[in-house]
Amino acid sequence: MSDITSNKALLPSGLRDLLPPEAEAEAVCVATLMGVFSAHGYRRVKPPLIEFEETLFAGAGGAVSDQSFRLMDPDSHRMMAVRPDITPQIARIATTRLAEAARPLRLCYAGECVRVSPGSLSADRQVSQAGIELIGVDTPSADAELILVAREALAAAGLTQVSFDLTLPSLVPVLLGQAGREEGSLKPLLHALDRKDAAEVKKQADRIVGPAIADILGDLLLSAGPADGALAALQRAALPDEAQALAERLAATVGEIQASAPDLRLTVDPVEFRGFRYHTGICMTVYAPGGGAPGVGQELGGGGRYMCQGEAGPESASGLTLYPEAILRAVASKHRPVRVYVPVGANADRAAALRRQGFVTVAALDGVAGAHASDHFVAARQQGCVHVLADSALVAVPDALGS
Amino acid sequence: MSDITSNKALLPSGLRDLLPPEAEAEAVCVATLMGVFSAHGYRRVKPPLIEFEETLFAGAGGAVSDQSFRLMDPDSHRMMAVRPDITPQIARIATTRLAEAARPLRLCYAGECVRVSPGSLSADRQVSQAGIELIGVDTPSADAELILVAREALAAAGLTQVSFDLTLPSLVPVLLGQAGREEGSLKPLLHALDRKDAAEVKKQADRIVGPAIADILGDLLLSAGPADGALAALQRAALPDEAQALAERLAATVGEIQASAPDLRLTVDPVEFRGFRYHTGICMTVYAPGGGAPGVGQELGGGGRYMCQGEAGPESASGLTLYPEAILRAVASKHRPVRVYVPVGANADRAAALRRQGFVTVAALDGVAGAHASDHFVAARQQGCVHVLADSALVAVPDALGS
Repeated sequence: MSDITSNKALLPSGLRDLLPPEAEAEAVCVATLMGVFSAHGYRRVKPPLIEFEETLFAGAGGAVSDQSFRLMDPDSHRMMAVRPDITPQIARIATTRLAEAARPLRLCYAGECVRVSPGSLSADRQVSQAGIELIGVDTPSADAELILVAREALAAAGLTQVSFDLTLPSLVPVLLGQAGREEGSLKPLLHALDRKDAAEVKKQADRIVGPAIADILGDLLLSAGPADGALAALQRAALPDEAQALAERLAATVGEIQASAPDLRLTVDPVEFRGFRYHTGICMTVYAPGGGAPGVGQELGGGGRYMCQGEAGPESASGLTLYPEAILRAVASKHRPVRVYVPVGANADRAAALRRQGFVTVAALDGVAGAHASDHFVAARQQGCVHVLADSALVAVPDALGS
Repeated sequence: MSDITSNKALLPSGLRDLLPPEAEAEAVCVATLMGVFSAHGYRRVKPPLIEFEETLFAGAGGAVSDQSFRLMDPDSHRMMAVRPDITPQIARIATTRLAEAARPLRLCYAGECVRVSPGSLSADRQVSQAGIELIGVDTPSADAELILVAREALAAAGLTQVSFDLTLPSLVPVLLGQAGREEGSLKPLLHALDRKDAAEVKKQADRIVGPAIADILGDLLLSAGPADGALAALQRAALPDEAQALAERLAATVGEIQASAPDLRLTVDPVEFRGFRYHTGICMTVYAPGGGAPGVGQELGGGGRYMCQGEAGPESASGLTLYPEAILRAVASKHRPVRVYVPVGANADRAAALRRQGFVTVAALDGVAGAHASDHFVAARQQGCVHVLADSALVAVPDALGS
């Protein structure tokens, strides 16, 4: 085997083949998620893999433009890009071709995205996404619906013990903006917040934005955790009006969620602001069982509120994207259908009936009709079959085959 | 509305958004096809959208290399390409990562392909594919299985009156090769065959390859049509040995198909050789109802026999790809679930039960609990709902709403 020959099998880093049974499990997972989205009135749309960069990176899409592969369109001689994310495409559809559709507009999607470099979640450069967007409504019940529907979808996919972490990425900018400072001078403080370094936050905030805001930031930083504790910290803080409105909106949303799903594990991190470059309201990240504390455990999806930039003006929307591959890593696959070997000359109607019952039938492509079932055990085993169809009966392939 | 603003909504030619309900119908179609493939023992694999061009265009893939968008991989500094076709990726998987898996190896796949220019089938540059590959077996029953499984998949998707056109793209080269001529001098003859111009075929063939082959070509050209007539023409022709073997293999395959599916419409075009650039045996094209004669009617898919180039040597394989978008154009969509509007305060358990029964529920995001069902008719209608959930009963939204 020469090096050149073996290199031919290599895929670029972060791009991989899903083999049996993982590819099937992923497809079943996507179908399950989409089924729940659809059952809640989210209508499926399917934008193309490639668009003009001008439309792909307009508005919300600009946040991921540096993560995109570019292509020259030989037809128009304009630059296109392979989509790194689907949400901006849904926003484009909502504000153009579906601009006249009734609001609230519920849309869902599933598809592949490609990024130039792997993200922080995994080494993959191609990522499967399945998500929902709720467009044209800006209320606590809209934010709550996304979380409740995503929770139901994850439960249908086999994950019942998920936790949602809620953040308000505009809260820190609002608090610091009130202090009337230049963005550049805030860098050490933002860096300390990012690292959740309470002592450094206090020191930097005292110096840069004054002790009043410093005390609030310190208190909020320490309150990150279960929703009730974080909401209490927000409530007792002497917040400026704009920040107070954000906190009240978050409390109302948490109330809506807890009323419908009192057992759902909800955390809040009030001063988290990373990675939400185009979000304008409540953001959410969902974690697999075993995680739960913000930033701990496998991330299964996320999203938040943003502005759709339509021709008729901006429109508030919120969306949540789930990652089927991450969900599969968190759940043991349950999809293992029983395979039945069908010798030449076996009853074709019986084989068709087995398929309707959920069996997989694998046809022999050669061999003698009328042979005994045991004559097919070796071939059946090679094809991963646990039964042989003989006359109309299923004969079990023995665990140990005689030589 | 300025020109620049409206241009933002434009997609590149051949790339489009699927909107509701078409996007859902396409997803249901793909799931239906894959369900039948899977029930016959074809195991799902999912190769990436992008690969190194070196692997993507090795062997069978070379035929479509001029149809591919190229990308530079910033990680490896090697050239990659967006896949224009999936079959070569399946051949790569079969001969590398699944080289040790038992033969016959049955694999299936569904995904998107992108081409630089639209194909002859439609204006689309992004095409959805769902297909099967049967690797490591070269028998009439293997070719027949592909057609029988594809027929069952199309029937499950709602198309029962399809027709399959079988061709032997290597027959003409074999016949002409026997005449011992240079390829360049055959051009006028190939062009005449391509146009199915019988008079010109006779004239060119007489001059270039002699009267014996000319008579055979003329007879076979006229025999294109229902399988029995074309097979009879092949049988009575005085074919050279290698061509005779191809004809006998075709007759055996047709016999296998007719034994299992006597009603299936089968045509044969013995001298068709276009568009099968990497095929080595029997090829097939499937047409929608209304078509049936070769080249007439909507093409729903196609495939044929080819060689997988593995490290352990070449391996014969055959595959068949279906085009879900073409299938949807040929079949009226049946997927229209009933949508139910769920006012604030309605019974959540009842809504969940409706979803389990296949209804779609659309939640009101505002409004007063306890209002009368008729108070929700306007909002329900706007959301495409035909019922309102009141207490635990479904109240029909009237066709005409009072003002």
